[in-house]
Amino acid sequence: MPSERRPSALTNPRSDRVRAVTALGRRSMRSATGRILIEGPQGVRELIRYAGPTVVDVYVTAAAADRYADVVGDALSAGCYVHEATEPVLAAMADAQAPQGMLAVAQWAPPTLESVLAAGPRLLVLMTQVRDPGNAGTVIRGADAAGADAVLVSDNSVDITSPKVVRSTAGSLFHLPVVTGLDTSATLAALSAHGIRTLATEGGAARTLHDVDLTTPHAWVMGNEAWGLPPELAAACDARVAIPIYGRAESLNLAMAATICLYTSATAQRAGG
Amino acid sequence: MPSERRPSALTNPRSDRVRAVTALGRRSMRSATGRILIEGPQGVRELIRYAGPTVVDVYVTAAAADRYADVVGDALSAGCYVHEATEPVLAAMADAQAPQGMLAVAQWAPPTLESVLAAGPRLLVLMTQVRDPGNAGTVIRGADAAGADAVLVSDNSVDITSPKVVRSTAGSLFHLPVVTGLDTSATLAALSAHGIRTLATEGGAARTLHDVDLTTPHAWVMGNEAWGLPPELAAACDARVAIPIYGRAESLNLAMAATICLYTSATAQRAGG
Repeated sequence: MPSERRPSALTNPRSDRVRAVTALGRRSMRSATGRILIEGPQGVRELIRYAGPTVVDVYVTAAAADRYADVVGDALSAGCYVHEATEPVLAAMADAQAPQGMLAVAQWAPPTLESVLAAGPRLLVLMTQVRDPGNAGTVIRGADAAGADAVLVSDNSVDITSPKVVRSTAGSLFHLPVVTGLDTSATLAALSAHGIRTLATEGGAARTLHDVDLTTPHAWVMGNEAWGLPPELAAACDARVAIPIYGRAESLNLAMAATICLYTSATAQRAGG
Repeated sequence: MPSERRPSALTNPRSDRVRAVTALGRRSMRSATGRILIEGPQGVRELIRYAGPTVVDVYVTAAAADRYADVVGDALSAGCYVHEATEPVLAAMADAQAPQGMLAVAQWAPPTLESVLAAGPRLLVLMTQVRDPGNAGTVIRGADAAGADAVLVSDNSVDITSPKVVRSTAGSLFHLPVVTGLDTSATLAALSAHGIRTLATEGGAARTLHDVDLTTPHAWVMGNEAWGLPPELAAACDARVAIPIYGRAESLNLAMAATICLYTSATAQRAGG
């Protein structure tokens, strides 16, 4: 960071500005302001690269500005406001124990299901009643890695904009469209109407993911970590599909299951297409 | 639990017995006693089913004894000592915030690499310098689900017997052999000597897991979460293999990467065999 910015470093962890950032750890404040908190250099880097116009402010300690000079450079090039802050100020702002000296505030501008469907997606994942922030974030990261076209999240799932979910996505939140607040039944109907098959993951299903055609457009539907999909939602999907368990494990965790499904699909679609 | 046991319920969270269980949260005490702590009904159930003779004691609250009567029944049938304890006693013993009213102490009797190799394994995973307990446990769970023959863990990785790792395995620690304390270089040599190809996972590798023959016996070698495998260890493996990233994610997390590799292998070996 240019040295001429240093005199303006934020030093008071109890200032109104700091309190306003800290408050974004609460869902109510994110809803009221439409703003979210992105912590750590990796998240901030991906935010600037892929959602630069949404950045409101970047906060960085002097040490982190040296260490992650590339990210600060990207931020300044993108015209972001970059503020130097002391370690106590960063710590007061952050939800994470160790935000690595850098965080950003951004406008949260989620895409709509209509815009996702209009783009003719071939691979989607829909999370419904997913409650664990780490799981939700890891599903988004896995969907990104597998080249999925978007992630859909039901209105009764964990809040995707919570700092813990944002951290778990490792920047993937800004790499692909993540649609939130969806009604699950209406979404299943909309997917079917657009020729996208809906595949419910269900441990006890008779068919495995090796028994279904994954080359055509489809959406994996993932239920709650503990109890899976409610029967009526599983029944509303075009097929119920199990991941084979070859050993003695009872199940895979949600993020692992989603990643295996999405990678199997990506492999099939690339081989088939 | 039979009502005649209730009069002997443990009620003092500061008793020597409780302190001795609590102390198993520390590595030094696990090493000194050769005992480990297994928390929650799922872990205790799998411990009793698959490693019954190693169980030293089972502790359960009255509420959990009603709720998980099947596990208590299994424990009594297996001849385990089952002790009723109050909620404060369970809370004092446990490492977890919520052990769901049940935990067990067991002897830890890990298998040796020699015994694993003597069984003619076809699919293995070796973790080296893995530091996060949740990652390590999830790799063990994924290896179990994928039907791997064993998990190998280097001496510079997280302690597999720590309560957090044990919890993350969701019982899989007792489903397949988990060999610990291994020297990585010596293990790679031993695997090669037994005709087991060693495949280093490496983000930048030229070959992907779709370019290698996975039908023959092999071991996936997973490095540290942040920096991967040291170059000299990657070079010592028979091949360096990348998981293809189809989107914009920089990488997958360790547990996801291991699970994808192991499932791809399991699918290939079952199709090929």
